[in-house]
Amino acid sequence: MIETDALFLTLTVVEFAAVALFAVTGALVASRKEMDIFGFGLMATVTGIGGGTIRDLMLGSLPVFWVKYPSYLVICLTMAALTFFTAHLLASRYRTLIWLDAMGLALVAVLGAEKGLASGAGPLVAVVMGVITAACGGIIRDLLGGEPPLLLSRHDIYATAAMAGAIAFVALTGLGVPRVAAVCVGIVLGFVIRGFAIRYSWALSPYKPRPGRNPADLGF
Amino acid sequence: MIETDALFLTLTVVEFAAVALFAVTGALVASRKEMDIFGFGLMATVTGIGGGTIRDLMLGSLPVFWVKYPSYLVICLTMAALTFFTAHLLASRYRTLIWLDAMGLALVAVLGAEKGLASGAGPLVAVVMGVITAACGGIIRDLLGGEPPLLLSRHDIYATAAMAGAIAFVALTGLGVPRVAAVCVGIVLGFVIRGFAIRYSWALSPYKPRPGRNPADLGF
Amino acid sequence: MIETDALFLTLTVVEFAAVALFAVTGALVASRKEMDIFGFGLMATVTGIGGGTIRDLMLGSLPVFWVKYPSYLVICLTMAALTFFTAHLLASRYRTLIWLDAMGLALVAVLGAEKGLASGAGPLVAVVMGVITAACGGIIRDLLGGEPPLLLSRHDIYATAAMAGAIAFVALTGLGVPRVAAVCVGIVLGFVIRGFAIRYSWALSPYKPRPGRNPADLGF
Repeated sequence: MIETDALFLTLTVVEFAAVALFAVTGALVASRKEMDIFGFGLMATVTGIGGGTIRDLMLGSLPVFWVKYPSYLVICLTMAALTFFTAHLLASRYRTLIWLDAMGLALVAVLGAEKGLASGAGPLVAVVMGVITAACGGIIRDLLGGEPPLLLSRHDIYATAAMAGAIAFVALTGLGVPRVAAVCVGIVLGFVIRGFAIRYSWALSPYKPRPGRNPADLGF
Repeated sequence: MIETDALFLTLTVVEFAAVALFAVTGALVASRKEMDIFGFGLMATVTGIGGGTIRDLMLGSLPVFWVKYPSYLVICLTMAALTFFTAHLLASRYRTLIWLDAMGLALVAVLGAEKGLASGAGPLVAVVMGVITAACGGIIRDLLGGEPPLLLSRHDIYATAAMAGAIAFVALTGLGVPRVAAVCVGIVLGFVIRGFAIRYSWALSPYKPRPGRNPADLGF
Repeated sequence: MIETDALFLTLTVVEFAAVALFAVTGALVASRKEMDIFGFGLMATVTGIGGGTIRDLMLGSLPVFWVKYPSYLVICLTMAALTFFTAHLLASRYRTLIWLDAMGLALVAVLGAEKGLASGAGPLVAVVMGVITAACGGIIRDLLGGEPPLLLSRHDIYATAAMAGAIAFVALTGLGVPRVAAVCVGIVLGFVIRGFAIRYSWALSPYKPRPGRNPADLGF
């Protein structure tokens, strides 16, 4: 099982990186809103660990993960402090951040779904847990920043990529594929879909209002 | 106990209908904001199951109900998809929706209070649980849609009707009335109050600013 | 231990006062937004008990405190009703309210951190619990009131004072200082810092946008 251990060590490292990166996106919103250092800390922390926190609450896996493993808090607060002093540099590395975020998104979605299955939830709930873990941090970030959630106002393939990765992982696990392989396929699929969406500006079509069959239309 | 079983089967069916209806109101906000299909799914789900989720969290009844019974998720997602393609038709059936929503409101409030009592909470907390179950989904819907909660900005009798139904149920249960009868009376009362409010535009009076006894007023 | 009992009786009384005061700030937002009596009740309750509720959820201390001790609900609802009829008087006592709020803030932060330690969390998490208890009620209040959180838009020393009190308490406890003494020092420190901030308009410096090292700046 040495290889498996090595793989999950790798995944843990990458998960920390994903949390750190989500935290940076929170801190960047704080910089745009010209908050103080405390606001940076709050926005970074909420964005970094918000999705996983809601997942743990729904599953009843309490206390939530960052109470058990405070390193996640340390990472978020460190990123907040770093961003407070370097946000002007980060802003010009926007493309890099988007690609790192795509990697974090894919990873966190699959690990979230994995935690759902591990806690005994069925496949649909596990996929929902993956999407929650990947998307809820950003939603809370936008609410606190005083903006309607980005996830709901732009239509690019973001949560959908997370969902695809989580579905692939859950489906493969259901088919008896070993956990390690299912995790890897899920992550790669989520990342590839998100990557194509970034590269080719893929988007979902928004709802288009149509005239309703209301009395006026019918000539009443 | 056959009649009791039949009653609670009926209630379960109607509860599913209430969740479905709340989900539709979430999806209709998504259509007004021109979200994509993913946004419809999220808004419908959050509105349909948000109130019950917060109730379960407060009571410590974890994992939350829809993790135990994923059918609630299936219903919300189905309503989201249906609404994505038919929102223009639904919009002209606004009066019907409002009346269906009144029925859902009354039912969900009493069932929420019932769950509170069943988990050992006292009467005040049970009533609060009823109101939370009935009202919180709509509050989250409005926050995510980028609007101040409807519940707080309009003054019609909405949460108040839910509260009245929950109070009636809790009071009757406290007086030793059988659970089935208490549930029915609570639901009917909540529905009738909400119905009168819709029919006759009943409203609570908002707070009216008055000049304060501040130094300037006193001639200082 | 009679003195200890007397101290904690005092603390309990002051904690109720703090919840009542937070509830009043929620009801005052309701009055500014011209909500009805139901809106007052909801805003007061959410502001009064919101921070402690989130703390209990994170720690997995369920059901949350106000389900166990409904007196907290009674206090919030009472303050809502009182404020509905007297908001115009309270508004002219703004300075008094700010000083009472400072006392509540210091107390609630230390008691929140204490609950964190008591539930077995480490020092960093305990401090975070103190800040959550002190700050989250106000954040939810502002979100429901349709405003970006005050905590994030103004830069005065508010959550920072809560954090300082919580850190002092946790540090002293870690050094073996008796709980009573640590609680008192923490509360006094938090209150003094907040007091100086009010008196001398202390503030944290906000993030100032700077030109980034982007290609254009470098003359590319």
